Amino acid sequence: MRLFSFENTHGQSGIGALIKNNASQFVDLCSTDSKIPNNLLSIIQSSDLMNRASAALSKLDSIKGHLEDISYKPPIEKPGKIVCMGLNYADHAKEGGNARPEYPSFFMRVPSSLTAHASPIIRPKVSDKLDYEAELAFVVGKRIRHATLDNALQCVAGYSIFNDGSIRDYQRKTTQWTIGKNFDQTGAFGPYLVTPDELPPGCHGLNIQSRLNGHIMQNANTKDFLWGVAETIVLISECMTLEPGDLVITGTPAGVGYARTPPVFMKPGDICEIEIESIGTLRNSIADE
Amino acid sequence: MRLFSFENTHGQSGIGALIKNNASQFVDLCSTDSKIPNNLLSIIQSSDLMNRASAALSKLDSIKGHLEDISYKPPIEKPGKIVCMGLNYADHAKEGGNARPEYPSFFMRVPSSLTAHASPIIRPKVSDKLDYEAELAFVVGKRIRHATLDNALQCVAGYSIFNDGSIRDYQRKTTQWTIGKNFDQTGAFGPYLVTPDELPPGCHGLNIQSRLNGHIMQNANTKDFLWGVAETIVLISECMTLEPGDLVITGTPAGVGYARTPPVFMKPGDICEIEIESIGTLRNSIADE
Repeated sequence: MRLFSFENTHGQSGIGALIKNNASQFVDLCSTDSKIPNNLLSIIQSSDLMNRASAALSKLDSIKGHLEDISYKPPIEKPGKIVCMGLNYADHAKEGGNARPEYPSFFMRVPSSLTAHASPIIRPKVSDKLDYEAELAFVVGKRIRHATLDNALQCVAGYSIFNDGSIRDYQRKTTQWTIGKNFDQTGAFGPYLVTPDELPPGCHGLNIQSRLNGHIMQNANTKDFLWGVAETIVLISECMTLEPGDLVITGTPAGVGYARTPPVFMKPGDICEIEIESIGTLRNSIADE
Repeated sequence: MRLFSFENTHGQSGIGALIKNNASQFVDLCSTDSKIPNNLLSIIQSSDLMNRASAALSKLDSIKGHLEDISYKPPIEKPGKIVCMGLNYADHAKEGGNARPEYPSFFMRVPSSLTAHASPIIRPKVSDKLDYEAELAFVVGKRIRHATLDNALQCVAGYSIFNDGSIRDYQRKTTQWTIGKNFDQTGAFGPYLVTPDELPPGCHGLNIQSRLNGHIMQNANTKDFLWGVAETIVLISECMTLEPGDLVITGTPAGVGYARTPPVFMKPGDICEIEIESIGTLRNSIADE
């Protein structure tokens, strides 16, 4: 399934599921089955609710909505944590002047930094160094600590797309990148949460691309991860408990704006798209704060 | 007021307020006034509920509990974000081999890393490099963006104490400290949230001390902050919105374990206390995972 969180024109929240071979309509899960809550986090934690979602999607008289009538919300609005990996592609480590790492550079984003598919990414008042980063994201559905390579992928509720929007001058004010990664509405997340059954294990071997105003800026494949999804889960859960609703973003490949000659930064009116094969396209305009 | 979140012997959650000159009892706010919810975050966001708490505390027939009968919880259990400052005291920057900084090193902790007053701090399986860090903490009560030095302190709901327990080898695996700051139950927070009216503005000029098994390890004063509380709020809110329930921890002074000769790390059975003048003492034992 491809599930998403939305708000309709009356300001009501709902959960939608895409219909195969139908680019304009979706199934409104909460209207089709009143037992399905309008909260994707509750649904992914419950195999009963996931089964209900699946049944609602395939019901002949399901209640449908039009994709053009809704506003997307981040699939999970307030993740308990957002664990981010830096330097998970060797070519991106190299373009930033970093040696091939032996351990991932983890940092955290906070929920106030999120924005949704088709909502703007905000360029803040205090900087014009807004950069894009195409990333595969996954959402945790089951609590896990000390995962092994064998059981790690069982905790994944679904995959999505993230644009790890970065304010480069703030990111480099000190050795700690965090502040440059946490400006309001700079981290785009969505549009869909795609359940693992629709994708190769750990999303191995998928093309990932960013485009700025239609020009390809990053073009890579998740087979080039230094740490794949299962290994990432093992490493994080060695340190902390991964809990339902937690979001992990897996780092970006080469081609970011600040490392180009001359550097490229995003400005109001630009359109940034991140496409991951078999998952979809996350599309955002840029607007000034 | 000195407010705290607790669980009683029946597993029920409540909010307590300390009684002046009474070291054994507290006022059980939710039992005294049924309109007061058992959630400190809801209370600090509402001036009406804060007034009710104050009235309940001074009521002659308030319902009391015994401090020895309760388990403390972190004052705010799931902060929306936990913004941490590194290197906010010049002497601590120096002991770690860092130059006097021109901008704070911000990083984030996540709620799964918290532990309460009188609960153990957990030394993880994978490391014996568990270190203490005494820090002043404050909790945001009102949403703020682009604060000024004049209005910054108005967003503070109260002050507390934090032990920013750090797994030093993981903190130094890469340039990013975050992973070493986010092991489960390593960040002790509490015991009380002390409202600003009981303290000097921005908590300026308070002694702060850590003690390990009774030995003084850190001994400083918040007047030595490189960035005071108001300046910190201005800097953070230049980048992101501070929201009710957000927690900010303000960095630690010199004297941490890893910088000693020989280094000192905490081990099971140790007792670590952080005392801040006029706020209280946060006390935790150390236990193995």
